[in-house]
Amino acid sequence: MSWAEWLAEQRCSRERAGLQRTLRPRSASEDVVDLASNDYLGLSTHPVVRAAASDAAMAWGAGSGASRLVSGTTTLHGELEAELAGFTGRDSALVLSTGYHANLSAVTALADRDALIVSDAHVHASLIDAARLSRARIEVVAHNDVDAVRSALAQAGGRRAIVLTESVYSVLGDAAPLPELAEVCAEHDALLLVDEAHGLGVVGDGGRGLVAGLGEAPQVVMTATLSKSLGAMGGAVLGSDALIDHLINRARPFIYDTALAPAPTAAARAALHLLRDRPDLPQQVHRRASQLADRLRVARSAGAVLSVPMPSPQVALAAQAAAREAGIRIGCFRPPSVPDGVSRLRITTQAGITDDQWARAVEQLARVVEQHRGTP
Amino acid sequence: MSWAEWLAEQRCSRERAGLQRTLRPRSASEDVVDLASNDYLGLSTHPVVRAAASDAAMAWGAGSGASRLVSGTTTLHGELEAELAGFTGRDSALVLSTGYHANLSAVTALADRDALIVSDAHVHASLIDAARLSRARIEVVAHNDVDAVRSALAQAGGRRAIVLTESVYSVLGDAAPLPELAEVCAEHDALLLVDEAHGLGVVGDGGRGLVAGLGEAPQVVMTATLSKSLGAMGGAVLGSDALIDHLINRARPFIYDTALAPAPTAAARAALHLLRDRPDLPQQVHRRASQLADRLRVARSAGAVLSVPMPSPQVALAAQAAAREAGIRIGCFRPPSVPDGVSRLRITTQAGITDDQWARAVEQLARVVEQHRGTP
Ligand SMILES: Cc1ncc(COP(=O)(O)O)c(C=O)c1O
Ligand SMILES: Cc1ncc(COP(=O)(O)O)c(C=O)c1O
Repeated sequence: MSWAEWLAEQRCSRERAGLQRTLRPRSASEDVVDLASNDYLGLSTHPVVRAAASDAAMAWGAGSGASRLVSGTTTLHGELEAELAGFTGRDSALVLSTGYHANLSAVTALADRDALIVSDAHVHASLIDAARLSRARIEVVAHNDVDAVRSALAQAGGRRAIVLTESVYSVLGDAAPLPELAEVCAEHDALLLVDEAHGLGVVGDGGRGLVAGLGEAPQVVMTATLSKSLGAMGGAVLGSDALIDHLINRARPFIYDTALAPAPTAAARAALHLLRDRPDLPQQVHRRASQLADRLRVARSAGAVLSVPMPSPQVALAAQAAAREAGIRIGCFRPPSVPDGVSRLRITTQAGITDDQWARAVEQLARVVEQHRGTP
Repeated sequence: MSWAEWLAEQRCSRERAGLQRTLRPRSASEDVVDLASNDYLGLSTHPVVRAAASDAAMAWGAGSGASRLVSGTTTLHGELEAELAGFTGRDSALVLSTGYHANLSAVTALADRDALIVSDAHVHASLIDAARLSRARIEVVAHNDVDAVRSALAQAGGRRAIVLTESVYSVLGDAAPLPELAEVCAEHDALLLVDEAHGLGVVGDGGRGLVAGLGEAPQVVMTATLSKSLGAMGGAVLGSDALIDHLINRARPFIYDTALAPAPTAAARAALHLLRDRPDLPQQVHRRASQLADRLRVARSAGAVLSVPMPSPQVALAAQAAAREAGIRIGCFRPPSVPDGVSRLRITTQAGITDDQWARAVEQLARVVEQHRGTP
């Protein structure tokens, strides 16, 4: 088959399955309540964060110019790293260009052919890609099943082992049993990699994430994004000094990538300062998330993400369009972006909108969900 | 072996080999001529580009908030994509968070277990990782060896095939024989993926890169970074409409990643406008690169990168330090960051510095290189 034929055939089968996607650019002045983004605390558009990004671009330029190892590391990166580590109670941090790069870097620098990766069935695409790329032996275990992790580790057969999990899962919004996982990992001298992409800024004491609650936990490797509750872009890996030194020397998606640009680096730092001063922001997210879950009669979320199963991809799209008609943007996740094949609405709770906007959105969403949940 | 022991052992062996790396943060006000960065045209700190980044952060916020497929696509992304495609003579473009994401996306969305990847031995880490991740059959061929590519394609045995190359190679600075490769690929109905990371803004008519010189070339997939001559951060894939539609639907490092932030998106666009208006900038890079190559008695570069082989990693580091003493920052590339195991200085030509700064730098570098080239 020629490439042109193959591309055409792929498109046809997407269209038949109702899974064709297109991009819809938004303008800066749109009049919509955004309950689709992961900017849970509204910090991306906070005046202090905007100003930090804007000032950094003026002071440092638009880009970092080179890899972190060449001339791309600025004092901005160093400050952000120290403060991220301090906030989450880790020894050291390393900032990368995206959360995706953070997961690719942590996993591939640690795991090789001689390692065993035990991966929760629901982890994010970036962790799945990271595991594949590492060439380690991979055991996928049932979601949040601590016993399954224990028996996989018991069969490691001398391989260095890493367990992959998220603190709060990105699509279903549930939390991992971290204390139990950390204990099992400590027993087997395995590392526990916890992706806090949807935990940092939302859960734990003052939004410190769930890893912070584990105490020192030297066997834990934490990854995070700067692109969600911190409102910027980028990622980070946090852990022991020895771990970070190893990544600097060995992580290909760190070494062979241009450093995160000054504007998002400074913005993430300003957002972290705001978060430190405003523990009421994560609290507001929780209050609202629970209220909306109850109103929609779906499971409460551990964090900010509400998952509303829909009968089909087509109905999920229709519900999303109906919400849009009512001035609310929500997410619609269809295969392959769902861990269980079930198309769903993904609604994120936002602390950055007014009480009035929120109350109206809750009522509109209750109406839209009611109307679509039944239609097959 | 425990994880702690393994990390310690890895560090020891790096230290013994003279390959331990550390990060050295730079400040905004450093007094140094930077001939290490890939900001070849000096656009990262151009007032118009800084202002574009700064204004975009104020107008749009610090982050894009979500995946391009959820609510992360802004009109900024759309405009940049249309203009990148127009400038390089391609049908369509897709902007991603990094050049690394661009290569991972293009390769993994196209190649699967049923595909064959024919990869030049010198391609960038991001293309190597992309090929591994795709699970395709991989044939690595000698650098710039068109006959080897031809015979690898002749043995594809019905597999869809992709050939991976860079237009101007990142470390050695030499160019690929693109017209010949494009012809061989057309004969075998193979795709030719050309990474223009170090080509865009530097080579070809007005800095349009080498792919533009091939004409329409429907079998060519181009990737690029926004982090080098465009002075910002991010990446792009360019090609047919069908290709871009396929990536939007299938490329995991596009789908499952937060959209590029507003500031670098707007900055790359402003830099592209400047490049369009200033064909003298790439010309200046060429003049200076040739002058420096002749003065250092090394091979001339196809683009902006000069490669100066050194007798050992330790001497390469010493030469870099001596240049630093003289107020010049240059790159020092050691294994595993070199395609041939040879440690070297990597000096980039910059159009953004004054004639006086350049002339002084050339003389200082000639002295440093002369002093170190002989010492084993
Ligand atoms: C759980 C999880 N990990 C990692 C990422 C990647 O982060 P980023 O978008 O910063 O690349 C995401 C989302 O995009 C995510 O949801
Ligand atoms: C040839 C090549 N391709 C891709 C990349 C990755 O681009 P980025 O730094 O934007 O991730 C680089 C450099 O970093 C490169 O040199």
